[in-house]
Amino acid sequence: MKTYQEMSREELTSLRDELSGAYEAVKRKGLSLNMARGKPSPSQLDLSMDMLNVLNSGSAVNDVSGIDCRNYGEMDGIYEAKKLLGDMIGADPENVIVCGNSSLSIMYDSVARSMLFGVAGSTPWCKLPAVKFLCPVPGYDRHFAITEKLGIEMINIPMNEDGPDMAAVREYAESDAAVKGIWCVPKYSNPTGITYSDDVVRAFAALKPAAEDFRIYWDNAYAVHDLYEDSRDTLLNIMEECKKAGHEDMVLQFCSTSKITFAGSGIAGIASSSANLDWCRKEMTIRTIGYDKMNQFRHALHLKDMDGIRKRMAEHAAIIRPKFQAVYDCFDKELQGLGIGTWTKPRGGYFISFDALDGCAKAIVAKCKEAGMTTTGAGATFPYKKDPRDRNIRIAPTFPSLEDVREAAALFALCVKLCSVEKLLNQS
Amino acid sequence: MKTYQEMSREELTSLRDELSGAYEAVKRKGLSLNMARGKPSPSQLDLSMDMLNVLNSGSAVNDVSGIDCRNYGEMDGIYEAKKLLGDMIGADPENVIVCGNSSLSIMYDSVARSMLFGVAGSTPWCKLPAVKFLCPVPGYDRHFAITEKLGIEMINIPMNEDGPDMAAVREYAESDAAVKGIWCVPKYSNPTGITYSDDVVRAFAALKPAAEDFRIYWDNAYAVHDLYEDSRDTLLNIMEECKKAGHEDMVLQFCSTSKITFAGSGIAGIASSSANLDWCRKEMTIRTIGYDKMNQFRHALHLKDMDGIRKRMAEHAAIIRPKFQAVYDCFDKELQGLGIGTWTKPRGGYFISFDALDGCAKAIVAKCKEAGMTTTGAGATFPYKKDPRDRNIRIAPTFPSLEDVREAAALFALCVKLCSVEKLLNQS
Repeated sequence: MKTYQEMSREELTSLRDELSGAYEAVKRKGLSLNMARGKPSPSQLDLSMDMLNVLNSGSAVNDVSGIDCRNYGEMDGIYEAKKLLGDMIGADPENVIVCGNSSLSIMYDSVARSMLFGVAGSTPWCKLPAVKFLCPVPGYDRHFAITEKLGIEMINIPMNEDGPDMAAVREYAESDAAVKGIWCVPKYSNPTGITYSDDVVRAFAALKPAAEDFRIYWDNAYAVHDLYEDSRDTLLNIMEECKKAGHEDMVLQFCSTSKITFAGSGIAGIASSSANLDWCRKEMTIRTIGYDKMNQFRHALHLKDMDGIRKRMAEHAAIIRPKFQAVYDCFDKELQGLGIGTWTKPRGGYFISFDALDGCAKAIVAKCKEAGMTTTGAGATFPYKKDPRDRNIRIAPTFPSLEDVREAAALFALCVKLCSVEKLLNQS
Repeated sequence: MKTYQEMSREELTSLRDELSGAYEAVKRKGLSLNMARGKPSPSQLDLSMDMLNVLNSGSAVNDVSGIDCRNYGEMDGIYEAKKLLGDMIGADPENVIVCGNSSLSIMYDSVARSMLFGVAGSTPWCKLPAVKFLCPVPGYDRHFAITEKLGIEMINIPMNEDGPDMAAVREYAESDAAVKGIWCVPKYSNPTGITYSDDVVRAFAALKPAAEDFRIYWDNAYAVHDLYEDSRDTLLNIMEECKKAGHEDMVLQFCSTSKITFAGSGIAGIASSSANLDWCRKEMTIRTIGYDKMNQFRHALHLKDMDGIRKRMAEHAAIIRPKFQAVYDCFDKELQGLGIGTWTKPRGGYFISFDALDGCAKAIVAKCKEAGMTTTGAGATFPYKKDPRDRNIRIAPTFPSLEDVREAAALFALCVKLCSVEKLLNQS
């Protein structure tokens, strides 16, 4: 098999005509496919419907310490929920605050709080001439949106197979006191699906940032989101490693049950050192009397413990694994060996990351769109939506039906081919 | 009956000895009473237990427009919830965003957003040399805590029987562009229980603030919280009045179901002009993918409409009216005509406001505390916790049992008498 690069102009021209014909045929189908967002499918949400039964009009509504979960108060969250989330991410219950339905909100609030009040006693960032964050790329668009919205300068850090390029992280963080944080999705990273190696986690823990108020924003969104029960990625416990290194205040860890129970009605938490949590509480207690303890209680009663979580995640995997596989099968069949793209095959998480030929991502996304398929916008996985090589596209196969995933993957592969051949023709 | 002021030194001394004896006797009882916070009692929370049945494993989970309430998205909230909250406070559904469980959080976010980003295009307040808020006093301690935390200077505005002193409001708001807002609890005000008159609401709507980004923070927390069905206070619709006056962007209205269903697990919303809501959305969409729509759906299914809300509020009133009455009965019997205090008898809301002799509030609160009764801290109803006359105490009779309310009111009255006589003896 020839790669596209090995083809003659005539071969490419003929191929383009053939692909264009195929593309026009697909367009006539009037498809409506969406692989843009990491959303669970309805059948995944169905898995947790029993959670709606655990609290009913006959239920006891007091948590283990006797707190009436219906009433105001207990800003920290109920013990059962702290234990549940803590177990999931390797934190003691007393190092967890359980909040509302969105870990994104907790992250936003953590950064916004730092802007307004500084971090645990440091100068409020809004009073500083410059604040910078390190952003491993490709990464999570909503992280970058937070720092962009708050006027924080974002610095791209290359992402390797085992995590961010730690030499680059060290260089920036240890030399520039304006660098206040780094965004991380350490397990089944969004979008590349890789998990940080033990060495990378230890390198994080060993950082000696120039800024005392530098924090690692450790978004452990996919802590238990394994696709293969027999080959789970393992992630070293960053909080333990930081503690060992004498840097226990350096990490803020975030998590939620959004992709375990109900995406919009889960519970989310922040885990960190006592000092950091006390800093959070000082503002939280002004902002709220407490989060929704009934939903925390509902989750604790329903999921119970790590066994309950593991069982649920295996059920999720059974639904979404075939969707990932359908994408791999299609790409292997359609794109392998053509020299026009590479893609990840993660063992967990919600995304496949596709790297096209340089300069092709926007064109591919546009072509997909024109034929009725929405993907995450090209560039979205980079700060300021600027992919310097215009090549990365995030594919989210969980929400559509398996049938739709197959159709979408085929269309995507077709668009990759068509855009690649056009690019090669234009540059030759 | 003589007032305390009319008593001779000998009479006062003898009275003090008598009251001290009574107080010591109460202290020996080892009471534990709490009238500090406006919390519903367990029996009030019991009223809404059926809400836990409306969504179960067999339920349809799609709202009226077909949205799957379990999944991500729909940051604005579901239509049913917008309609429910909108009807409650007189706003069209399209002028409502339904959020999570806390209106306090929405208010905090509204002010914090203005600090960080300005109001709908204005200069971020954190870039200004001074930002000021008007605070009708006595008022709600958690409002004042927000503005204090954010470094906003608070200016006391006298509270009259019909609302804030609008001449003072006008003078400050229309002459000083640093004045960016005013905190209002317009119906059954916290803590005085008064409702703003039509004239006051119209005067608000007619304001011509010096600052274009001045907003009225209209915390309509007790919109439907009537104690007497046959003599409900009515509140003019501020949004309509502002619109008529050509100032529709001037008001941000807040509400929640915290004191309708479950205090910690209700739904809360913000209502305002399209322009203001768009401004909110620009930040909200960075902060969250959406609020808990299942809880919104649960509320809509359970409360249904205004009739459902009215019915629930009548049930609440039946429980808490006797507690308010017990306080009135006690104060009428024990304190009437003595010249040592005045108190409100609101037709709704959650509080009774007590004004002692000047300089006595802290002493009374301390005396209560010493005998096992917690009230809201003296000064809490004023910015910076500074009651210039040290006389106002907020009494929250809803949470304790009726029996405890009776005991607490008696103890409170006793402490008022004792502190008053001590004050008069000390100054004479």
